[in-house]
Amino acid sequence: MDVAIPKGFRFAGVYCGLKKDPRKRDLALIVSDRPCAAAGVYTQNRIFAAPVAWDRAHTPSHSVRAVVINSGNANACTGRQGLEDAAEMARLTAAACGFAPDDVLVLSTGIIGEFLPMERIREGIRLASERLSADVDGFLAAADAMLTTDRFRKVASAEVVVGGVPIRLAGLAKGAGMISPQMATMLAVVVTDAGLGVSQADQLLRRAVDESFHCISVDGHMSTNDTVLLLANGASGKEVDQAADMELLSEKLVDVCQRLARAIPADGEGATHLITIDVCGCRTREDAMRIARTVANSPLVKTAVAGADPNWGRIVSAVGYSGVPFDPEKLMLHVNGYLLYQHGRPVPFDPEAVSQSIRQSPEVFIRISLEEGPAAARFWTSDLTVEYVHINADYHT
Amino acid sequence: MDVAIPKGFRFAGVYCGLKKDPRKRDLALIVSDRPCAAAGVYTQNRIFAAPVAWDRAHTPSHSVRAVVINSGNANACTGRQGLEDAAEMARLTAAACGFAPDDVLVLSTGIIGEFLPMERIREGIRLASERLSADVDGFLAAADAMLTTDRFRKVASAEVVVGGVPIRLAGLAKGAGMISPQMATMLAVVVTDAGLGVSQADQLLRRAVDESFHCISVDGHMSTNDTVLLLANGASGKEVDQAADMELLSEKLVDVCQRLARAIPADGEGATHLITIDVCGCRTREDAMRIARTVANSPLVKTAVAGADPNWGRIVSAVGYSGVPFDPEKLMLHVNGYLLYQHGRPVPFDPEAVSQSIRQSPEVFIRISLEEGPAAARFWTSDLTVEYVHINADYHT
Repeated sequence: MDVAIPKGFRFAGVYCGLKKDPRKRDLALIVSDRPCAAAGVYTQNRIFAAPVAWDRAHTPSHSVRAVVINSGNANACTGRQGLEDAAEMARLTAAACGFAPDDVLVLSTGIIGEFLPMERIREGIRLASERLSADVDGFLAAADAMLTTDRFRKVASAEVVVGGVPIRLAGLAKGAGMISPQMATMLAVVVTDAGLGVSQADQLLRRAVDESFHCISVDGHMSTNDTVLLLANGASGKEVDQAADMELLSEKLVDVCQRLARAIPADGEGATHLITIDVCGCRTREDAMRIARTVANSPLVKTAVAGADPNWGRIVSAVGYSGVPFDPEKLMLHVNGYLLYQHGRPVPFDPEAVSQSIRQSPEVFIRISLEEGPAAARFWTSDLTVEYVHINADYHT
Repeated sequence: MDVAIPKGFRFAGVYCGLKKDPRKRDLALIVSDRPCAAAGVYTQNRIFAAPVAWDRAHTPSHSVRAVVINSGNANACTGRQGLEDAAEMARLTAAACGFAPDDVLVLSTGIIGEFLPMERIREGIRLASERLSADVDGFLAAADAMLTTDRFRKVASAEVVVGGVPIRLAGLAKGAGMISPQMATMLAVVVTDAGLGVSQADQLLRRAVDESFHCISVDGHMSTNDTVLLLANGASGKEVDQAADMELLSEKLVDVCQRLARAIPADGEGATHLITIDVCGCRTREDAMRIARTVANSPLVKTAVAGADPNWGRIVSAVGYSGVPFDPEKLMLHVNGYLLYQHGRPVPFDPEAVSQSIRQSPEVFIRISLEEGPAAARFWTSDLTVEYVHINADYHT
């Protein structure tokens, strides 16, 4: 595993008894050796978890030193006690590492509506603070400790030379659906050793999230805990303050975030295909996003992909009800490179060949072109299988 | 079967070879012995079928004499040829019955992207025009000829005495999902012998549809053919023109439309539960509808019901991402009469008892209360089962 770990960061992932299986890690710690510029983007759900409330109140910041993350319990719908527990997680981490509690961010994921077992959390933070490591193993242990129903670990990193100085970015994420059975979370943390101002960090993160985590869905159900954090500690020695350098770093951050984001629907509950939806020729990016999201959330489109069915009618009719105005005569649809629809009519195509192309690959590409303008968007989703229903209907029974 | 057939209407349903199975009817005809005030409400999909284009151009009207309906082929995504075929259906019906083509409305449902076999349609219209009948059998035959993947026929009727004169309403509908595999349609026709002006008919229908067909979903996928028509021929001898009488008739029309509308998610593809969602205490009806629709379209809520899982977290978090502002502390949730959530926290409840209540009944009641205002909405949806995925993923394979 080749990961470019940013300078000045250390990581740990331990087991403290939040998950049933002691072979799984459930508490992660990320610590910087100096204050970080930190920005966060959070769930827009009005029912949001206690750690979201804590982090929202503490970002953007120019002095963040650590992020503590637990899986197995989301600390959501837990009222005042939940808020106190999130603050206590920050205090315990601050005490173990020698920071101020206000410089610690907190993430939680897992079952909702249950209080955190604070004794185990306390033990986990103590353990993790003793095992902090700047190497890849520590980083991967932290990534593993974020997971819940995920089938695989989600990390991405990049290196970029800015003004002759190499800068590194490394990201960790979790999610196997915007929400899993009683497990409500998509979390990601990206750390970099670039030197950034607070407003720069905020601006960079917002752009990157707009082009990555805001462009995915598994089931369209927004969680109570969604959080993406960016921490920039400047340990590379390079202050990124020129517009051209910012642009370069921004592109790399978008790339890292997109790789993390794509991994979530690729690991979608029960999913057998990652579906990439490209929409172009729109008046605005909002229009393109709205069309892409509507197609991505149609259970009929998703079941068609699961069944390797080149069902152009479901895709075209989903574009039609997206709410975006367009001329139906100018709509063009490709699936896996095959032209299926043009001039208001399906075109003759070999359904078996298209079906075969879907069946043979874990990735499907849907391209929707209008002729209304220059804007485009790319969106990722997963297909809908019988397994998804089993996972989500048979959870309690 | 007790149906109050409005005076002056005759019905027929025949088989003419549009469906494969000759035991199924596939062409329906509804004829009035005098001109009707007619109103229509249509799909908002920008990709809309040819018959929708025809009917939109011909309603509201004060002179409609007939509705011709075929199942097995939606005449959608068929370009200019499709528009000519829809007009030809009106001309054939007009010729068979002695009306002007502009006084005939046309509905189609079934596979999309294929041209209508016009020779069979011509034969069906001829057959149907010879079998028109004013009795219940004719009415039910017409209702049957609208169906596609529906498991059961959908009819409703009502009688109401207005100013001493009995008035009848009778409705026919089809739909087993907003869209079925390559079958894109929800259709309904309500006929009444009340005497109504054109703008009255239009106004009454819009209100009724807002409280019925606009309050259902199976999979959130809007079809290309959705159409609801109201025909009022005045054969009862009663002109309904007083405000109080209009209100009375309106209530009955809402009732008939709600009964037809509920039947659609109750017959939803693969559905094992009809879910009624009541949302109250909202600022506006739009807010209440938005919350209800968000909960209704969450695959996680729908799979929870299929699994008889009293999963309050999924319902509450769906309310949270509906986009409607509210105070989470004042949200209250009941499922089948059991209080599950209050004061920002789940309340202690017996999960087995609630689960049992879901498992034992084909209907589930979800009640969401806020304290933001006086507005409310009622919405119906179906649960999401493995069978739904089978129906929609295995269609071509």
